[in-house]
Amino acid sequence: MEVDLHKLKVNDPFLGQYQQLVRDVVIPYQWDALNDRIAEAEPSHAIENFRIAAGQQAGEFYGMVFQDSDVAKWLEAVAWSLCQKPDAELEKTADEVIELIAAAQCEDGYLNTYFTVKAPGERWTNLAECHELYCAGHLIEAGVAFFQATSKRRLLEVVCRLADHIDSVFGPDGNQLHGYPGHPEIELALMRLYDVTQEPRYMALANYFVEQRGTQPHFYDIEYEKRGKTSFWNTYGPAWMVMDKPYSQAHLPLAEQTTAVGHAVRFVYLMAGVAHLARLSKNEGKRQDCLRLWKNMVQRQLYITGGIGSQSSGEAFSSDYDLPNDTVYAESCASIGLMMFARRMLELEADSQYADVMERALYNTVLGGMALDGKHFFYVNPLEVQPKALKFNHIYDHVKPVRQRWFGCACCPPNIARLLTSLGHYIYTPREEALYINLYVGNQAEIPVGEKTLRLRISGDYPWQEQVKIVIESPSALNHTLALRLPDWCEGAQLTLNGAPVTQDIRQGYLHIQHLWQEGDTLMLTLPMPVRRVYGNPLVRHQAGQVALQRGPLVYCLEQADNGEALHNLLLPRDARFTVFEGKGLFAHKMLIQAPGYRKHAENADAQKLWSYDHPLATPHSQTLTFIPWFSWANRGEGEMRIWVREAE
Amino acid sequence: MEVDLHKLKVNDPFLGQYQQLVRDVVIPYQWDALNDRIAEAEPSHAIENFRIAAGQQAGEFYGMVFQDSDVAKWLEAVAWSLCQKPDAELEKTADEVIELIAAAQCEDGYLNTYFTVKAPGERWTNLAECHELYCAGHLIEAGVAFFQATSKRRLLEVVCRLADHIDSVFGPDGNQLHGYPGHPEIELALMRLYDVTQEPRYMALANYFVEQRGTQPHFYDIEYEKRGKTSFWNTYGPAWMVMDKPYSQAHLPLAEQTTAVGHAVRFVYLMAGVAHLARLSKNEGKRQDCLRLWKNMVQRQLYITGGIGSQSSGEAFSSDYDLPNDTVYAESCASIGLMMFARRMLELEADSQYADVMERALYNTVLGGMALDGKHFFYVNPLEVQPKALKFNHIYDHVKPVRQRWFGCACCPPNIARLLTSLGHYIYTPREEALYINLYVGNQAEIPVGEKTLRLRISGDYPWQEQVKIVIESPSALNHTLALRLPDWCEGAQLTLNGAPVTQDIRQGYLHIQHLWQEGDTLMLTLPMPVRRVYGNPLVRHQAGQVALQRGPLVYCLEQADNGEALHNLLLPRDARFTVFEGKGLFAHKMLIQAPGYRKHAENADAQKLWSYDHPLATPHSQTLTFIPWFSWANRGEGEMRIWVREAE
Repeated sequence: MEVDLHKLKVNDPFLGQYQQLVRDVVIPYQWDALNDRIAEAEPSHAIENFRIAAGQQAGEFYGMVFQDSDVAKWLEAVAWSLCQKPDAELEKTADEVIELIAAAQCEDGYLNTYFTVKAPGERWTNLAECHELYCAGHLIEAGVAFFQATSKRRLLEVVCRLADHIDSVFGPDGNQLHGYPGHPEIELALMRLYDVTQEPRYMALANYFVEQRGTQPHFYDIEYEKRGKTSFWNTYGPAWMVMDKPYSQAHLPLAEQTTAVGHAVRFVYLMAGVAHLARLSKNEGKRQDCLRLWKNMVQRQLYITGGIGSQSSGEAFSSDYDLPNDTVYAESCASIGLMMFARRMLELEADSQYADVMERALYNTVLGGMALDGKHFFYVNPLEVQPKALKFNHIYDHVKPVRQRWFGCACCPPNIARLLTSLGHYIYTPREEALYINLYVGNQAEIPVGEKTLRLRISGDYPWQEQVKIVIESPSALNHTLALRLPDWCEGAQLTLNGAPVTQDIRQGYLHIQHLWQEGDTLMLTLPMPVRRVYGNPLVRHQAGQVALQRGPLVYCLEQADNGEALHNLLLPRDARFTVFEGKGLFAHKMLIQAPGYRKHAENADAQKLWSYDHPLATPHSQTLTFIPWFSWANRGEGEMRIWVREAE
Repeated sequence: MEVDLHKLKVNDPFLGQYQQLVRDVVIPYQWDALNDRIAEAEPSHAIENFRIAAGQQAGEFYGMVFQDSDVAKWLEAVAWSLCQKPDAELEKTADEVIELIAAAQCEDGYLNTYFTVKAPGERWTNLAECHELYCAGHLIEAGVAFFQATSKRRLLEVVCRLADHIDSVFGPDGNQLHGYPGHPEIELALMRLYDVTQEPRYMALANYFVEQRGTQPHFYDIEYEKRGKTSFWNTYGPAWMVMDKPYSQAHLPLAEQTTAVGHAVRFVYLMAGVAHLARLSKNEGKRQDCLRLWKNMVQRQLYITGGIGSQSSGEAFSSDYDLPNDTVYAESCASIGLMMFARRMLELEADSQYADVMERALYNTVLGGMALDGKHFFYVNPLEVQPKALKFNHIYDHVKPVRQRWFGCACCPPNIARLLTSLGHYIYTPREEALYINLYVGNQAEIPVGEKTLRLRISGDYPWQEQVKIVIESPSALNHTLALRLPDWCEGAQLTLNGAPVTQDIRQGYLHIQHLWQEGDTLMLTLPMPVRRVYGNPLVRHQAGQVALQRGPLVYCLEQADNGEALHNLLLPRDARFTVFEGKGLFAHKMLIQAPGYRKHAENADAQKLWSYDHPLATPHSQTLTFIPWFSWANRGEGEMRIWVREAE
């Protein structure tokens, strides 16, 4: 079901720029980072670790236990980037890295620089805490991607040997380990490996990992006892990662889990793998698990920005309707994982709700995770920031008021890079009955339909303009159905085919048009983009009395740079009319919103008491409120920011 | 300036009950706790530690490094209680404890069970972390109190020997330590000891501790190096208590400190000592330090409940105007310390603002710290609680939805007990020019005025009723000024003397009446107590758009038991009229408030999406809102609570 990225060229005026930024800035910058050539960033040592493991250099392992995965994610981003734009020099660098990885692989197929260099006797003794299968998963993903991108089998063979080794170590036999990863990732990686190799052992192994998860006696406890109760992470107390089983979704077998819990990235990585597995294994139980847990997540625990993980402790979900705006975690990687999960759900079910969430995550948290210069990144994505308070109140220790350069734990930047370069995988879901168009990203694609090929081009200026044009470019006529997503934020969508209105056959959020497509056939989809007021579910206390603005898929926010300090004193009247206009400078080609509002103003409030009786200190003064797309916040230095704004009746 | 508690009988219908509760329930219960006779509570071991230190029993030290202070605070509560109501059996028990303490004292006067039993070689090697001077301070306070209460010198002599020992260890000489306590307390204790002994060395030592604080080279670093960089507390990283100098107000000399910072209890304990010292040493610099830091605290960092310490991390202040309602710490002990600081400020300055804060702390956070059964206590006092969220979001780990029994770190319960039993110290400030009446607690007192004695009785039903009656009971006439505090929450106070209106001579918030007082002279003070709406300073984002209710000194709140779930959906109209009425059952003799309001209601919100476009899901339904005095919340099991309520224009 995966679109071949050689046959899909993103030429979107908006996201195309991001892809270019990844190619021109992020990938070279991250390559420098992996090689410790960025003076002001924390050292990575990731390439060095491979050299040491390969015996090419002396030294000690340095970095996180999952440092290898940064290299794998970088390679995956390179692979997808090469599909978009061949680059001989970059490919040569990647080939060299792949040779290095191959050299670091052990005789038996094992591959992990931490254990090979630092603790060779401790292989597979601490799955709960040590990310061994997680790193393997990322390497497998890189191997699959590099094969798909270049047809070169070198890394694919390395990771097949790795997967074969893992398959020999894990399984139901008496001499095998009955474990599964503390940090899921390998499940989805094995499914991707199965996609390209069709080796049934890989799907069976993914299935084994999923089905072992959360069973009793608990594997985490067994291995913990076996290794003499040593513990790797003590952040929240001794062996907390072993003890806190919901943290890694290992408290119960998946079939008994009812809510999205624990570390948000782990949850969505796991579920992406399960959805892939459910589809290919045609397993109704696992499909139900996906539907049930998806529903809990999006109906009770999702931010309007497509962020998940409402608390810093454990980078985790908290509970239904608990969605604080300022202490939220909403890791960039979690929204990337959410897109991966959503994409697999779309492959499982032709229902636009999954694409709605995917789009929301992409255009808000994922884009917002990277600065417009491609060199600064958010790990945590708050919906409200008061910089003055961040410095002193430790509930905000995880929140940064501006994007940072490379992190010590650098999962997010390379993850954003691989997501943006592989965007083509998210635009379409080709199914037998129809080609589903999920995202209106400008692109030109060739998609197999039976024996034939459908060529089409999507253009427009999404998400800023309402018109999307889809032109058929297949030289020979082809009978097929196109299914166009009608976004959840959109009312009154209109479609014409060659200028004539199309009868709206809408199923599960997609508008279906069956047609004998000829070269030059032109669909014009109009998605009205008035500014929408968004109101939170009354059970969410953090949004009570407040409103958020959305236009198209973009959530907007107030920033201090436009609106002054104390954003909590700004009110948007219920009946305020909005002006939508193109910004300047940093906001050129971006649509901004203004509305007449007011500020509860207090002359010299700083000299007043903390409270007053009977009459408010503050009187309202008229003020024009300026909203910018939230993904573009914090590109003008430190300042307050707020998505949910008080509404005056 | 201290009123003799033998000559002051609290007979207040409201607070008198609390005093009785302390006598009848808290003191015996805490005695059981100190002796580990309460099965369901965490063990204390505090008495046991003294027995072991005294060589009367074998065993190991157990408990916090400051466990001794629990015994000292209990003894202090007993002392004040004996003033109110002699109790031969209790006094005998106390005498035995005092003998035990005396037996645990070392030859040289040193007295601390942790170091004596567990680490005798480490005395005075870790002032930053180990509470040695803090425990000494509490023992000194107990010694002073017991002497004042019973005229028995036994414990006073013990603590004088202890103070003398400390005086020999600390000071400017080359062979002395130039240190000061990580946890202030001894400063105020030494000033109290000076009050009863008039020994100038004790004031000089307090002065030394205050003036050494925060100087460079930093004593914490010096002793840290000297002891080989060992660390006692690693909660927030190695030796954090040494490194984080603002935590214990040791980052700068006091004269250079501009804001209330760090651990809130330490701050107010320190400042209580400094205010006492500033007055008796007539030191203008220290007086200015008190005024400046008081002002920052009450104008920028004080909760409406008289709580201080807006964050759990470090049980500390955060920054100006950062006053979250749900993640707040607001430790009961901090509000007790705030009362102690305020009382010293009143002795320093005849200004009612200090009494206003003292009253606010007393009637809200301090009373709220103890359940109406006298057996359950809050350590943390939030202004908003959502029990469902507490369990899963770790920003609430410190918050309990209901009061708990004795704690592992049991500072608050005995502190509440000693505060309530010594309430008489806070009611009056006798000054040469006038007798200042700070609190309208019902009592009968004899207060020296020059060579004579002024006898008076205050009665009424404060804080529920508006009338306060003050009757002079001195048998012989006496010319003096009474200065009656006009509370900040009160407008239109009226005063009559023997039925005739009194000309209002108001200075710094006190109404002064000079008169030749005769037996039977009767002052009737009327303090109108309409329900007041309180509005937060516009710089406090956590109160924006919300209102709190106060009647008299009492802050009110909504509880789920009366108003249902999702209190954030309740709105109080700007023009709603209030009904004040006496409650029933638990609320008998307490005034409750009702008002017509409404609820933003959503049928079946749980089945709806997390957000909706353009029109709110919730429509308003009329609902009567019932407010209870906040100090009495959480006496009906677990439920939501909220002080700041949304106001509808």
